[in-house]
Amino acid sequence: MEILLGNPLYHWSHLELQRYFGYQGHLCADTAEEVWNLCNEQLQNKWTVRSLIKASNVTLICTTDDPIDSLEWHQKIAADDTFDVQVKPAWRPEKATVIDRPTYNDYIAKLSSVSGIEIHDFATLKAALEKRMDYFTENGCSVSDHSLDYIFYVPASDEEIDAIIARKLNGEDIVGTDVIKYKTALMLFLARQYHRRNWTMQIHYGCKRDNNAYMFEKIGADTGFDCIDNHTPAAQTADFLNALSVTDEIPRTILYSLNPNDDAVIGTIIGCFQDTTAAGKLQHGSAWWFNDHKVGMTNQMTSLANLGCLGNFIGMLTDSRSFLSYTRHEYFRRIMCSLIGGWVENGEYPNDQKALEKIVKGICYNNAVRYFGFDLKTVD
Amino acid sequence: MEILLGNPLYHWSHLELQRYFGYQGHLCADTAEEVWNLCNEQLQNKWTVRSLIKASNVTLICTTDDPIDSLEWHQKIAADDTFDVQVKPAWRPEKATVIDRPTYNDYIAKLSSVSGIEIHDFATLKAALEKRMDYFTENGCSVSDHSLDYIFYVPASDEEIDAIIARKLNGEDIVGTDVIKYKTALMLFLARQYHRRNWTMQIHYGCKRDNNAYMFEKIGADTGFDCIDNHTPAAQTADFLNALSVTDEIPRTILYSLNPNDDAVIGTIIGCFQDTTAAGKLQHGSAWWFNDHKVGMTNQMTSLANLGCLGNFIGMLTDSRSFLSYTRHEYFRRIMCSLIGGWVENGEYPNDQKALEKIVKGICYNNAVRYFGFDLKTVD
Amino acid sequence: MEILLGNPLYHWSHLELQRYFGYQGHLCADTAEEVWNLCNEQLQNKWTVRSLIKASNVTLICTTDDPIDSLEWHQKIAADDTFDVQVKPAWRPEKATVIDRPTYNDYIAKLSSVSGIEIHDFATLKAALEKRMDYFTENGCSVSDHSLDYIFYVPASDEEIDAIIARKLNGEDIVGTDVIKYKTALMLFLARQYHRRNWTMQIHYGCKRDNNAYMFEKIGADTGFDCIDNHTPAAQTADFLNALSVTDEIPRTILYSLNPNDDAVIGTIIGCFQDTTAAGKLQHGSAWWFNDHKVGMTNQMTSLANLGCLGNFIGMLTDSRSFLSYTRHEYFRRIMCSLIGGWVENGEYPNDQKALEKIVKGICYNNAVRYFGFDLKTVD
Repeated sequence: MEILLGNPLYHWSHLELQRYFGYQGHLCADTAEEVWNLCNEQLQNKWTVRSLIKASNVTLICTTDDPIDSLEWHQKIAADDTFDVQVKPAWRPEKATVIDRPTYNDYIAKLSSVSGIEIHDFATLKAALEKRMDYFTENGCSVSDHSLDYIFYVPASDEEIDAIIARKLNGEDIVGTDVIKYKTALMLFLARQYHRRNWTMQIHYGCKRDNNAYMFEKIGADTGFDCIDNHTPAAQTADFLNALSVTDEIPRTILYSLNPNDDAVIGTIIGCFQDTTAAGKLQHGSAWWFNDHKVGMTNQMTSLANLGCLGNFIGMLTDSRSFLSYTRHEYFRRIMCSLIGGWVENGEYPNDQKALEKIVKGICYNNAVRYFGFDLKTVD
Repeated sequence: MEILLGNPLYHWSHLELQRYFGYQGHLCADTAEEVWNLCNEQLQNKWTVRSLIKASNVTLICTTDDPIDSLEWHQKIAADDTFDVQVKPAWRPEKATVIDRPTYNDYIAKLSSVSGIEIHDFATLKAALEKRMDYFTENGCSVSDHSLDYIFYVPASDEEIDAIIARKLNGEDIVGTDVIKYKTALMLFLARQYHRRNWTMQIHYGCKRDNNAYMFEKIGADTGFDCIDNHTPAAQTADFLNALSVTDEIPRTILYSLNPNDDAVIGTIIGCFQDTTAAGKLQHGSAWWFNDHKVGMTNQMTSLANLGCLGNFIGMLTDSRSFLSYTRHEYFRRIMCSLIGGWVENGEYPNDQKALEKIVKGICYNNAVRYFGFDLKTVD
Repeated sequence: MEILLGNPLYHWSHLELQRYFGYQGHLCADTAEEVWNLCNEQLQNKWTVRSLIKASNVTLICTTDDPIDSLEWHQKIAADDTFDVQVKPAWRPEKATVIDRPTYNDYIAKLSSVSGIEIHDFATLKAALEKRMDYFTENGCSVSDHSLDYIFYVPASDEEIDAIIARKLNGEDIVGTDVIKYKTALMLFLARQYHRRNWTMQIHYGCKRDNNAYMFEKIGADTGFDCIDNHTPAAQTADFLNALSVTDEIPRTILYSLNPNDDAVIGTIIGCFQDTTAAGKLQHGSAWWFNDHKVGMTNQMTSLANLGCLGNFIGMLTDSRSFLSYTRHEYFRRIMCSLIGGWVENGEYPNDQKALEKIVKGICYNNAVRYFGFDLKTVD
């Protein structure tokens, strides 16, 4: 269980400890060691990754995968009859978007090699990515995931993008507006592809990463030194989606901002682009990361209920890589029921058990099944 | 009842359905048609615009009117003895401010024609607007309304403004800072006029409009595809008012931001400019449009109570063009009473019935009567 | 009691009136004069500054002092055996930071004179400030306080800073990015000094001051015409601290934003830089000024509890210069206990009296004693 040793104890919620390890106390410095030992003992003797997944009643998992990934392990688990939980890839082409990083040219070389298309301009980059999207579709992918600083919109001609790519491949640094022009063009291309392929587009934004240089030097990137960023211009978010709306090419889209102040902005932007091709075609993504607590979840759902249609919400997502994080879905469901139940008790929603059951089952499970078009049965 | 057919059913609140149509159920997809038919039947047989207004106990309505409007219909209704509700014009000179739009030059030509003053520079523009303000005053106007992206402050000399106007009238596009300089100068001029004329200045801001190009192509502007914008720089708002304060020329002013994150900013900015010429001379406008719900109203009033004097609040405004939207005032009053009553029950405000009655009647009606100086009796 | 006459009545909370003057009514226009007279009578006959301090059970006060201050009165009160409350200086070098103001050159001349070091470049400025910090340390100082528009980060070489200082001392105005470069360099220097000296760095930001030109003309600066500013870029705040983290030189730091929308940003930024040298080494400062009420305090503590460790919070600060403002600490403690007690009643925190007592006593008193390293006993 390597994964647990790399996951500090304080990341486990009390609910996780209770559910999997039967721990009944409450956490403080004195009991941490006791809990640590209890958990490790049970992980040695009782739990495997698969038994944790099964015990959590999981029916489908999407991992996030790079476009150059062979998806070998996805093929293996799909062929494995001893495990009936569906495990699907999700497309996360982040390395193809970060033209401002030194890693870009190496990555483009690899993408050329894996796709068999020599990338030297925007057209060949798009062709290579299309080929990999075909491959991901063959392997069951229907969801993408993007991590952006913010949702930008600085349009440029294909010739400008060609020139930016050429300069980068020639060893020049790309900075400032050119970076945003390249990213805008690539995101517009990808979004149109998702629309054409009936994939869902997820965009996470509002994070500033790796803020502690001292710890970065010691233990590297993505080790827990990130913060909320508050540069999330609503106008560019709306303009980006609007650029796709001109030709009616907005894919199903889920927007997650790490900045809780963006709740109302997101709620009103998605309202501009809803249509009848999917219930809640554009979604205000569930409270995430730093907002993944009672207050954050309650605020996100209250905002959604005020500005949109809560009954179409596809519910909780866990992006944690820990197999113990599934209890967060349980935590979410309890908070959601408490919120809606409070409205009913307060006379703000009718005490109509049939309607309430439909709403709650929808948010917990059925809406996601329908929204993503997964091969799963909805729950009665 | 043309106006209702153009107003989608889902814009009606449950309270509206209950009040006017006696509908007792709750709204879901199955009952929408039933409700639609019920409403249409009653609108054919029972209700007229005037009976809706009278049934809602309305005593005064301000419409918003363009400076070039003849106000013919205002004159007619004022002369009509069969309807005792006052209907006043409000001055909304938006078309004179949008020098960045193609419609500007045509509009200026019309304004020249209606005012009888040939507009060719800033001085003649101001003279033409003054003449129309005189006309509006003669027709009972004492309120203005402005819809801005944000409250800007980029000052410029009259010579610069003359040059910008000349370039525009000569067919050039005005862009960037020049647009903001023109708008700043015009807003400062208008605000000083309002002060001199004892008019109230209303500014709504924080909205980004017509975000869906596909639907714009199909059904045109202002059809429900707007969102909250979050570029609402507090510093420029304060600087704009401060520029008026130099000469003690701030009119009674009501600030409404569509961005709920601006509540505290507005509450502290208005506190900088209060004086003894009116109770609550600068007002934090009521929760509006996307915030026109229990959470938004509660937050706006709580913020105002924390930072200013809730007892001077002039209360609810409905900018909806539907004659059914008056129930929103009832909805507002219930939420307001629930909020204040909660404070009393919690021991946070004294249970002094006399003081409470004065506060509640003030916010519901009397404060607005006094603030705007309408020819109406306050309620005991 | 000059200080009270200069402090308008409406600044006194009901709690203050109750505590010190035994007033039991509630405040409205009719009773204001009665309260005014009651208070003045008691201030003439019963209360002195020292008796107010003692009655409030104060054990230590930090004033804020300019680097050129002689600290003469601090020395006198330290030598005075008749008063056992500790009174310490805090270092507030604001006048050395505002290179964009006309007062700067005069101030630098005074600082040169007091320190005995002729300031003509960055090195001599730093040397002069170091000398004054030595003097402040000798006089018991271990805390600094900074009032910034926002926390900026625009790094520059020492040569650039030398050139900026030379231009200013030569009579040129410093504007735009040069101001921010100078301030960034000076703040980095000072922060490193605080780290080396084991001082605490306090930064208050998010305020726009002196917004009413008419009243400024009449009664001058800092007279109550300030507002919340919303230009508080999270990225620069994180980058500023990160620049100090490279060499592991972040001092104990307390961040206070006047903009309540910054709560979550602050909570996540401080989480990036915590280490084991102090419990809650970086603190989310208590709700302050315009947020110094039940809603603001509750939101700040809820955010801190969601994102960090509430149990390490050093609690309330009063920056009011009134000797009656100590009751705000009592107000804070009641709100804090009500918040935590609500969680316990709701089953969200264990009803463990021992743990709760430790948390509450910590936030009320003990955490601050330990955090600042004051020579005071913690409370059992």
